Amino acid sequence: MMNELKNYRNFWKEYTRLGDIISLLHWDSEVMMPDDGREERAEQISQLSSLSHKMFTGDDSKRHIENLKNIIMKNQADTYPLKRELEILERDRDRAVKLPIELVERFSKLTNLAHGIWADAKKNKDFKAFEPTLSEITDLSIEMAECYGYKTERYDALLEGYETGTRAEDLEHLFLHLKNSLIPIVNEGKSYPSPFKKPIPVELQKAFNDKLPALLGLPASASRLDISVHPFSTSIGAKDKRITTRYHVTDPLSSIFGVLHETGHALYEYGVGQIADYPSPLTAAVSLGVHESQSRLWENQVGRSRAFWEYFYKILLKEFDIYHYDLPFDDFYNHINSVNKSKIRVEADQVTYNLHIILRFEIERDLISKKIKVSDLPEVWNTKMKESFDLKIENDSEGVLQDVHWSGGAFGYFPTYTLGNIYSAQLFHHFLETHQSFWDDLINRGDMTSLHKWLGKKVYSHGRIYDPKDLIKEATGEAPKSDYLIKYLKSKVQEQE
Amino acid sequence: MMNELKNYRNFWKEYTRLGDIISLLHWDSEVMMPDDGREERAEQISQLSSLSHKMFTGDDSKRHIENLKNIIMKNQADTYPLKRELEILERDRDRAVKLPIELVERFSKLTNLAHGIWADAKKNKDFKAFEPTLSEITDLSIEMAECYGYKTERYDALLEGYETGTRAEDLEHLFLHLKNSLIPIVNEGKSYPSPFKKPIPVELQKAFNDKLPALLGLPASASRLDISVHPFSTSIGAKDKRITTRYHVTDPLSSIFGVLHETGHALYEYGVGQIADYPSPLTAAVSLGVHESQSRLWENQVGRSRAFWEYFYKILLKEFDIYHYDLPFDDFYNHINSVNKSKIRVEADQVTYNLHIILRFEIERDLISKKIKVSDLPEVWNTKMKESFDLKIENDSEGVLQDVHWSGGAFGYFPTYTLGNIYSAQLFHHFLETHQSFWDDLINRGDMTSLHKWLGKKVYSHGRIYDPKDLIKEATGEAPKSDYLIKYLKSKVQEQE
Repeated sequence: MMNELKNYRNFWKEYTRLGDIISLLHWDSEVMMPDDGREERAEQISQLSSLSHKMFTGDDSKRHIENLKNIIMKNQADTYPLKRELEILERDRDRAVKLPIELVERFSKLTNLAHGIWADAKKNKDFKAFEPTLSEITDLSIEMAECYGYKTERYDALLEGYETGTRAEDLEHLFLHLKNSLIPIVNEGKSYPSPFKKPIPVELQKAFNDKLPALLGLPASASRLDISVHPFSTSIGAKDKRITTRYHVTDPLSSIFGVLHETGHALYEYGVGQIADYPSPLTAAVSLGVHESQSRLWENQVGRSRAFWEYFYKILLKEFDIYHYDLPFDDFYNHINSVNKSKIRVEADQVTYNLHIILRFEIERDLISKKIKVSDLPEVWNTKMKESFDLKIENDSEGVLQDVHWSGGAFGYFPTYTLGNIYSAQLFHHFLETHQSFWDDLINRGDMTSLHKWLGKKVYSHGRIYDPKDLIKEATGEAPKSDYLIKYLKSKVQEQE
Repeated sequence: MMNELKNYRNFWKEYTRLGDIISLLHWDSEVMMPDDGREERAEQISQLSSLSHKMFTGDDSKRHIENLKNIIMKNQADTYPLKRELEILERDRDRAVKLPIELVERFSKLTNLAHGIWADAKKNKDFKAFEPTLSEITDLSIEMAECYGYKTERYDALLEGYETGTRAEDLEHLFLHLKNSLIPIVNEGKSYPSPFKKPIPVELQKAFNDKLPALLGLPASASRLDISVHPFSTSIGAKDKRITTRYHVTDPLSSIFGVLHETGHALYEYGVGQIADYPSPLTAAVSLGVHESQSRLWENQVGRSRAFWEYFYKILLKEFDIYHYDLPFDDFYNHINSVNKSKIRVEADQVTYNLHIILRFEIERDLISKKIKVSDLPEVWNTKMKESFDLKIENDSEGVLQDVHWSGGAFGYFPTYTLGNIYSAQLFHHFLETHQSFWDDLINRGDMTSLHKWLGKKVYSHGRIYDPKDLIKEATGEAPKSDYLIKYLKSKVQEQE
C-alpha cells in the first residue's frame, strides 16, 4: 500500500514539474523570447497545457484518489494532513472534469480571439465593436458556471475558481462596508505631485531595485528580477522564483513599487515551496486573494510606511544620484501616499483602488446573474463612476473598455484584488500587535526579519491546509473584515493633515 | 490514408516541439536560471527527455512508420521525399530501440556522476582519481557499440551517432593526409601578440557583437545573443535561435569569434527551419560535422579573412573607442591568424586545432577497439603530443584530463570538429570559384548575401535529404577531401612571410 502512496507522490511531482515548465515557457515569452517565436510558443504552451490537463483529469489521477482513500480508511499512513490533501485533490479534480472538453476548447478559442478585438475596440473607443464578443464570452461563462454548479447564486461558481469557499454574499458584506467608509476618505485625501525634478536613468533605478528582493528576504540564489511590459511574478520551481518590473525614466516609483509588489508574491511562493511535503496539492498558494494580500502587504503596509523609507531613503537618493536638499523626505513620503481620483484602475492609489474593484464586482455579479445585459455595461459603468468618484466618463476606453480581464473571461477575478487589500491590512494589524519593535528594527537596521518569520508561520507554512477565509481566521483570530483596511487608509489620509 | 499522413505530421510536430521545450530548459539553465534551480531543472529535463524518448521509440511511432510504408507502396502521396523521410525515421528509430532502457539509464547516471569526478581530477592533476570511472564509461560505451552493431570496426557504431554514414577508415584517410601536411605548416607558422594595449569593457564589446549576427544574415526578430560560461547555439523553434558568447576584458577577440562561430550554427538551424515541410525528420541539421562546417566557415574562412576586417575594422575600432594609430590593421590581422603551439585544444588556433583533434581520434579509436587500455592513456597522450607538437606534457590536467567529452561518454564526437574544418574549406573553395565578386562586395559594403544564398541552396535547404558526405559531394561536386583545408591553412601561413 505504501508503494501506492509513493507512486502518487511521484505522479504529483511530475504534474508539478509540468506546470513549472509551462511557467518557464510563459516567463520566457514575456521576458526573453524573440518576436518571431510567438506562434510556435503558443503551440508549445498549448501542447503541454493539454498534457497537464489530461494528467490531472485522467484515469491515473482517479486511481490515485481511490488509493489515497484506501490508505486513509485502513489507517496506513499519518492521515493528517493526508485527509485534507485528498479533499483538495478530489475537489479540484471534480471541478476540472465538470467542464466538457468541447466547452473548454470553445472558451479558449473565443478568449484568444477576443483579446485582439478588445484591444482594437479600446484603441478606437468603440464598445459596440467589442459587444458581440463580450456577449459570447458572458454566455459561455454562464454556461460554465452552470456546469460547475452553485448553491445560492451563479457568480459563486466562478468566484470559487479564484477564491475557494468565498461567496458573493461574503464579498457584498465586506465590500459594502468598505465602500461606504472609503467614499468620505477619498474626498478628504490629497494628491501630491511627483518630487522627482529630473528623469532617473533606468540603470540607476535598476541598481536600487536589484537589491530590494533580497532585502525583503527573497534569496538571491533562488530568484531573479527582469523587465517586462506588465510586471508579474512566476514560479519555475520551489527554488526558482522570477519577478519582473517595468521602467519609466520620468516615474521611477513605478518600477520600485512594482518590485515591492511582485516580491511579496514571490516570497509567498518561495514559502510554500519550503513546506516539508513539497510538492503536494497542499504545498501551494491557497487563493488569489491571499496571494494578493502578500504582494499588497509589502507594497503598501510596508512599502508606503514612513519607517521603511526612513531607512531606505538615503540608499535610494544615493543610487539615484540625487542630493537630499533637492528632494526633501516629506515631499517624497506625501507623494507615495497621495490620494487621487483617477478614471483608470491601474493608475489608482491604494485608497481609490478598492472603489474601482467594488464597482467591477457589482457589475460582473449582475452580469452573470443576468440582472444586466452586456449592452447595458457602458451606462451602468458610467453611472457607478459618477456615484463612487463623482467623475464623468468621456468615452468607453477610459470606462468599461479599460481592463483586459473580461476579454479573457475572467469573471470572479477582480474581487480578489480588494480581498487581498483587506487580508493584508488585517494580517499586518495582528502582526504589529505582537511585534511592537518591528518599526524600530526597520528604521534602525532595515531589518524585517520578524515580519518575514511571522508570515512564514502564519501564512506560507500552511499552504492549502485551510481555505482562504479560514486561513485569515487562523492567522488573526478573526473572520475577514474590512475594518483594518479602513482604519489603515483613514490613518494615511489623516497623516496628510 | 491521407488522414494517416496528417496524423503522422502532427505526431512529428509534437515530438519536435517537445525537443524545442527541452532546448529552452537547457538554454535557460545556462543563461538565466538562479543557482538554486539546478536540481529541479535536472529533473524537469529528465522528465521531458524520457517522454520524448518514449514518443520516439514507442508504439505510436512504429505505427506511423507502418502507415508511411503503406502510403508509399500504394503511391498515395508524392513519394519523394517521403521515401527518404521514412528511411531516416526508421533508421533513427531502429538505432534508438537497440539500446535497452536499463543500459541508457546506467549510462546516464554514470556520466552525470563522472562529470564531477573528472572536474576534481583535472583540478588536482590526478588521472588515477578519474581512471576507474573512465574505465567504466569506456566499457559501457563498448557495450553500447555492440548493441548498435557495425560492419568493420566497433568505433564506427559510435561515430554513426554523430556523423551518419561516415566510417573510421574515412576519417583515417582524411586525417592522415591532413596531419602529415599540417606538421610542416605548424612549424612554419608565426605567433603575433595581442594588439590590444588596454582592456575593452564588456559594454563596448557587446555593442559590436550585438550587431554581428544580423550583419551575417541571422534575423534579429528570430534570435538573441546572451552570455554563458561556454558559448553555444541552440534552437527553441524554427523562428527562435539563441546564441551565447563570453566576455573577457583583456581578450575581446574571444567574444567576437565566439559570436561568429555560434552565428554560423544558428544560420544553419534557421535555414533548415525554413524548409517547406518543417517540421519533419528531413528538416533538421544533417550531422555534427556539417554543423561545425557552418560555424567554422563564418568564424575562419570569412571571419579571419582580410576582406571581412577591411570592412569591419573601422566599426570595431569605433565601438571599442580605439584610435587607428594605436592599433594598426596589420597587427590585428596577423594576430587573428597567429599559429601558436598550445597544449590546450580550446586555446588552439585554426591550424593546430586539427592536430589536437586527430590525436584524440586516434586515441579513442584505439580505446574502443581495445588496442589500448584506459590506464595507458596518459602515456599514449604525452607521446603523441611530443610527435605532433614537440611539446612536453607536465601533468595530466594539461594533457589527457583537459577535455570534458570523455567524461560524458561522447566517443566519436571529437572527429566532427575537424570534419567541420575540412567541409568548410571545401564548401568555401567551391563557393568562391563561382562567386568571384564576394570579396569585393564584402570589402566595399560588408555584403555577404551571395554566400548566404549559396549556403541556403547548397546546404540549408537540403536538410537531411543526403547523408553528410553525400551532401558535401552534391554541394561541391567532390567527395570530402582534406586538400582545400590544407591549401587554405598553408596560404594563411604563407601570407605571414
